[in-house]
Amino acid sequence: MSGVRTAAVVGTGLIGTSIGLALRRHGIHAYLQDRDPEALSAAQAVGAGRAQEPPARVDIAVLAVPPAMVAPVLSALQQRDFARCYTDVASVKLLPQAQAEAAGCDLGSYVGGHPMAGRERSGPLAARADLFRGRPWVLTPSAHTEPSTVDTAADLIGVCGGEALTMEPAEHDRAVAMTSHAPHVMASLVASRFAEDSGEATDLCGPGIRDLTRIAAGERELWTDIIGSNAPAVRRALAGIGTDLAAVLAALGELGADCAERREAARTELGRMLGRGVSGRQRIAGPSGNSWQDCRTVSVVVDQGDRSMPRLLADADRCGIGVAEVRLEQEPGRDVRAPEGRADVLVAVKSAPELVAALRSYGWVAWG
Amino acid sequence: MSGVRTAAVVGTGLIGTSIGLALRRHGIHAYLQDRDPEALSAAQAVGAGRAQEPPARVDIAVLAVPPAMVAPVLSALQQRDFARCYTDVASVKLLPQAQAEAAGCDLGSYVGGHPMAGRERSGPLAARADLFRGRPWVLTPSAHTEPSTVDTAADLIGVCGGEALTMEPAEHDRAVAMTSHAPHVMASLVASRFAEDSGEATDLCGPGIRDLTRIAAGERELWTDIIGSNAPAVRRALAGIGTDLAAVLAALGELGADCAERREAARTELGRMLGRGVSGRQRIAGPSGNSWQDCRTVSVVVDQGDRSMPRLLADADRCGIGVAEVRLEQEPGRDVRAPEGRADVLVAVKSAPELVAALRSYGWVAWG
Repeated sequence: MSGVRTAAVVGTGLIGTSIGLALRRHGIHAYLQDRDPEALSAAQAVGAGRAQEPPARVDIAVLAVPPAMVAPVLSALQQRDFARCYTDVASVKLLPQAQAEAAGCDLGSYVGGHPMAGRERSGPLAARADLFRGRPWVLTPSAHTEPSTVDTAADLIGVCGGEALTMEPAEHDRAVAMTSHAPHVMASLVASRFAEDSGEATDLCGPGIRDLTRIAAGERELWTDIIGSNAPAVRRALAGIGTDLAAVLAALGELGADCAERREAARTELGRMLGRGVSGRQRIAGPSGNSWQDCRTVSVVVDQGDRSMPRLLADADRCGIGVAEVRLEQEPGRDVRAPEGRADVLVAVKSAPELVAALRSYGWVAWG
Repeated sequence: MSGVRTAAVVGTGLIGTSIGLALRRHGIHAYLQDRDPEALSAAQAVGAGRAQEPPARVDIAVLAVPPAMVAPVLSALQQRDFARCYTDVASVKLLPQAQAEAAGCDLGSYVGGHPMAGRERSGPLAARADLFRGRPWVLTPSAHTEPSTVDTAADLIGVCGGEALTMEPAEHDRAVAMTSHAPHVMASLVASRFAEDSGEATDLCGPGIRDLTRIAAGERELWTDIIGSNAPAVRRALAGIGTDLAAVLAALGELGADCAERREAARTELGRMLGRGVSGRQRIAGPSGNSWQDCRTVSVVVDQGDRSMPRLLADADRCGIGVAEVRLEQEPGRDVRAPEGRADVLVAVKSAPELVAALRSYGWVAWG
């Protein structure tokens, strides 16, 4: 029997406070701790739980502290028999596991955890009960972790609306280096070019670079800790990017060469690199689940009469091409009575040219 | 007297078709041309104008063609006295200007242009009349450009809802290398790491890397042209990033050093780089206008009673700290009758700690 009825959140920053909010929304008793009294009272003020010592051993204690603090806090709490089981939310998993072993912690009642959620803003007042909804939440049980510990942590994840996912600690650290830590460094490097810009380039910043650099706003100290705690894996990921960057720089130099063949080779190299980026982006863009990851949008002009949505769907079906999703493109301020509208049809990348050709042969205006 | 009553759009891709849609919405006669008959009929089908030869010389012709095609198309159209004046929308400005001069074009009736707008999707069916609304649109008049040409182009920009901005061609190319072309390469390099990933890392991709790599989805051929046409400036921007990346790689290696002093120096270096990223991001994040660029959010717990929004504003005023904006944080599904809410107060970065301290001294729960 697992089941979480009482919980403690140790560390009421963004993640800890958000967990408290989710627990309270499910009527679970949540007790809050933080060494900063301002953070603690703020978390209590937004309704994340009570800022007091639990009256008895809680079902689960969530250590929402920096990576290097997980093992010391775990050790101290276990010595007081504070909770039935323990998890943490640190964004690296090898380091806390190794330190917990070295500190002689009880490894049966501990399971490492990492919710894949966050915001650029930090602190208890940026917390949201729905922060984890539909997001992966990795658990990294060791050989020592008892099954009931994993069950209780999975229950907590369910209460928060997350999707539990089990990985090896090393596999987790390699994956987050690729998906989060190395990208954070890249966003910082691009953003830092603007730290001393006089303004003319800054005036031209559009949605592209705004989205690209959004994560660079993350708190400096926190991210120095996170990246530093996963240095070997981040270094490997960045070294690969550095090698590719050197190739791009060489190609850009060659584009100015006198010899047409060298210019053409450089252009091919640049195109090949951008093409790999398009492929990689297709994998990143889709919601998890492979069926989505290789989709492409085909746009089709539709109207209320002869070229209607139902007929489009019938014609797509007639082609024998599986359609992942159809949506109508809504343009703000557009006259809804206007005869022209656009439908976006998502199909497998390889089927897109075939669908465009077939729809055109049936008389549709199609593009994709 | 400038004033645009008739216009031609040459090239009905995303940008050209979007301009046609904006022109038509203002009742301006728009004539469309494209060497691809499918693109042309699609642009006409969505209502971007008529796919026919204008009956008389138009007020302005917009060349929405790739950078290297601007000068040849301009030369051909001028020989037929096609338009009173000409502009283009190519994302580099030195190359078309130099090629137009070399081709012996009439430089008085031509002004280079570049709207800072786009989407990851391309083609006429991705077009939107509001694509340019509130976005900067650079004009790069040469010493030869007649004032009436600039006026007419500025009118066109106004019709499209854009904000006209004048720059030197070289200054423009340097700026877009920093804000768009080099960032595009960085997004591609990060995304390309996932092109051959087996899936475990892809499963952990969250909103951070999705936003960061969004622009990497851009059409490969188009972006090879764009980046290739601005190779020297892109190379300079990327070389700076490459130098910083090498420093980060060195610091990450040093974090594993035996010597504590070397580890500490590496940590300082990493933190310094991330700090520069935070500063740069603050400049990028704000809407144009310097007053916004150095703002920081202070969050405050508010309620309907004693700790109300009006009282918060009065107390902020009492501190003598200028407030750029106040907004209430809305959480989806939150019970609106709940006593707790959070207000986000935007103030100058340097004033944030002072405001937090002052509000706390008045009894508020504040964070920022």
